Amino acid sequence: MELIGDLPARPLDPAACFNQHGDPSDDGVSARSFRGPVAVVLPAGGCGERMGLSTPKQFCKLLDRPLISYTIHAFERIKWIEAVIVVVAEQHVELMKSIIQKYNHEKTQWCVGGLTRHRSIFNGLSVFVDDKFMECHLTKPKVVIIHDAVRPFVNEDILLKIATAANDHGAAGAIRPLVSTVIATNSEHFLDHSLERSKYRASEMPQAFLFDTIYKAYQKCTEYDFEYGTECLHLVLSYCNTQAKLIEGPPTLWKVTYKQDLFAAESLIKETLSQNVCVITDVDQEALQLGHCLKKMLMTQHMDVEVISAEYGKKKLCIPHVSSQESYNIIIIGNTELQEKQEVIDVIANSSMTLLYPMVLILVYISLPESTPFSKKLDEPSAIRRLAKEAKHRNILVYGLLVNYTKDSEELNESLENMCFISKSLMKDRNSALTGQLLVV
Amino acid sequence: MELIGDLPARPLDPAACFNQHGDPSDDGVSARSFRGPVAVVLPAGGCGERMGLSTPKQFCKLLDRPLISYTIHAFERIKWIEAVIVVVAEQHVELMKSIIQKYNHEKTQWCVGGLTRHRSIFNGLSVFVDDKFMECHLTKPKVVIIHDAVRPFVNEDILLKIATAANDHGAAGAIRPLVSTVIATNSEHFLDHSLERSKYRASEMPQAFLFDTIYKAYQKCTEYDFEYGTECLHLVLSYCNTQAKLIEGPPTLWKVTYKQDLFAAESLIKETLSQNVCVITDVDQEALQLGHCLKKMLMTQHMDVEVISAEYGKKKLCIPHVSSQESYNIIIIGNTELQEKQEVIDVIANSSMTLLYPMVLILVYISLPESTPFSKKLDEPSAIRRLAKEAKHRNILVYGLLVNYTKDSEELNESLENMCFISKSLMKDRNSALTGQLLVV
Repeated sequence: MELIGDLPARPLDPAACFNQHGDPSDDGVSARSFRGPVAVVLPAGGCGERMGLSTPKQFCKLLDRPLISYTIHAFERIKWIEAVIVVVAEQHVELMKSIIQKYNHEKTQWCVGGLTRHRSIFNGLSVFVDDKFMECHLTKPKVVIIHDAVRPFVNEDILLKIATAANDHGAAGAIRPLVSTVIATNSEHFLDHSLERSKYRASEMPQAFLFDTIYKAYQKCTEYDFEYGTECLHLVLSYCNTQAKLIEGPPTLWKVTYKQDLFAAESLIKETLSQNVCVITDVDQEALQLGHCLKKMLMTQHMDVEVISAEYGKKKLCIPHVSSQESYNIIIIGNTELQEKQEVIDVIANSSMTLLYPMVLILVYISLPESTPFSKKLDEPSAIRRLAKEAKHRNILVYGLLVNYTKDSEELNESLENMCFISKSLMKDRNSALTGQLLVV
Repeated sequence: MELIGDLPARPLDPAACFNQHGDPSDDGVSARSFRGPVAVVLPAGGCGERMGLSTPKQFCKLLDRPLISYTIHAFERIKWIEAVIVVVAEQHVELMKSIIQKYNHEKTQWCVGGLTRHRSIFNGLSVFVDDKFMECHLTKPKVVIIHDAVRPFVNEDILLKIATAANDHGAAGAIRPLVSTVIATNSEHFLDHSLERSKYRASEMPQAFLFDTIYKAYQKCTEYDFEYGTECLHLVLSYCNTQAKLIEGPPTLWKVTYKQDLFAAESLIKETLSQNVCVITDVDQEALQLGHCLKKMLMTQHMDVEVISAEYGKKKLCIPHVSSQESYNIIIIGNTELQEKQEVIDVIANSSMTLLYPMVLILVYISLPESTPFSKKLDEPSAIRRLAKEAKHRNILVYGLLVNYTKDSEELNESLENMCFISKSLMKDRNSALTGQLLVV
């Protein structure tokens, strides 16, 4: 696919946890123009009817992690957000508890939802004030953000705008232009009238409210509202006379509704994960040259590339640096022993990086014309396979790449282009079926 | 990604050209309850502002083919559709002409659009009646379908319903439930009111009209309509008093609007292409057994699998059969000479199959314990690379797969599971960076 996008390189953040250019959370508190705790309620009680799925969409897996964990992480990474309450159906409580534990969602707690969206949100809000949740030790927030579990790409920028506007005006919500014209039908399924598109907007999530305002609205609203209403903004308007401020959000706020949305979400995550790479080379001439060329080529593909050269045995020392850069791709160039590679894998696995996303590790071997052909070292390919098989269980995807190094500059250039093309595609696809393969360029 | 979908296996048809279970076009004419020609107008004059793209989205490539070609093909494959008029901006005429020629769009002609969507549609309609287009030799259709160039997944079922309803009622259009609540804002960007979601629908494409009705509406409508209107259904209601019949369409009618939609579209196409495979095996015992096991395993992955066994030299004779099954995946199992594989590639390339979609060809080699280790036959891997490089230019993606055949049933079973996992992923990903690789299972 041609990647000419409307999405800025970084702020996509399928959790901007991998944000190289300064963590926006750092400025979050100071940029925030109001004081007081902010919490989040995430209704996730849906049962997936719309998609016709056996698994509700918030629990569908992207890169082997449930969608809802991405959404939770998008909030947890923001310093000024203190707590996230996920509201789930009774039958998903155990699943939700296991997700919170497995992905170490420390700010997150769960409660059981009601039969409709509004009842679920009300249950989520009650956790902060109802005596029966006292054991949760939660402070009632000044501002509460309400979001959908199935909109994982919410970023700090829009959250800050919405929370600030809610603090100032009592309520705020994200909107988007309408993609299609909206029409009214009559009872025989004929067109009654169409709305002028420019006068209307789609109401999206997130929305935010002064806690007391939205809680009061729910206390006052009718059974009919609980049963058939869809829009919190409407409730605060009707019952608290609070007119919500509306703020234009980015297209990535879209709601994962159909199967094609799951595809889109996974592709966006993979694209973001493949935007930067750390290349660690041996110190010998060929490895250095390969590292240099690879950097040049990957940069023309709009990747951020950092090259580090290290002696035998020192490579594992570079990993804390990679980890601090939040890069999910490492390429190691050089023919050093497998033992060294195993040590690097151990360091990666012991950092917490691979908890949320699979790491790609490409081992580049150099076959020199004067040395024993690599393909004759029969033990090496199967050793890579064993290494990779074990690493896969630790969420590290290991691939081998064999470069035939020649003095013929035209041939070498073709090899290098191939190396770049294949590396880029391995980082982009994160295909777990191909780990342990030794690819030849 | 977990694939638990709402899309039925077949009717997705990113062009149901690869429809194994009977071609719906065959019944199209007889199922159609009216007589008279049907034509299509596809406004494609947009310049891609919404995506912030340098390439307008209708020309973005999916699997190396422009999106608009998929949409055109979705219509051309339907027998009862006689002509497609694509309306493009002046600056894209040459590009459009080259697309029509390259992908052999025989029913399609182009014309230049106006500055707005309505002007473009009117220009497209005029091709059928205006004297200056006489050289196009087009018959004025009884019913005209209007669609978006960026909704490639339109299927025959919805087209037939819409065209029939237009024939009966003068106008018809596809609708979908609203995904988000629609709200009205006041001039200060505060909420004015929200619409009750159940009473409204999103108006989507396709729409269809009696040609004379929509043409008359355009002749009568105002400059304001031409400039600011968006909805053809509204024009025929206002100017011809024709109330459109509204028909619920499938979710795959969605409009490719943002970058994530391009990702989703490409994934849907790939998924559809990987639903069936033809396995051609040698007649020796090991090849037959591998073919049999692969079939069993791929079927548990919801693939349609057909196994054919053929003697040396006969494999190319199977290709016309594969081609008639519209399968875009072939796995050849056996150690026969490369010459034979080259002949198979030639037959595939000379069929017209690869014009629209890349074909995946997986060559499975069997390494028997008693024979020379395959890895020692140094010429073989590089011969596969050469073969694959040449085949790629002909839109055939060739991969090698080496299976270590052992008598140990547990080991063999693991190899077979790996073979299935890797094959499935190669068919699914259609990754052109990895062609020519010899993967080991």
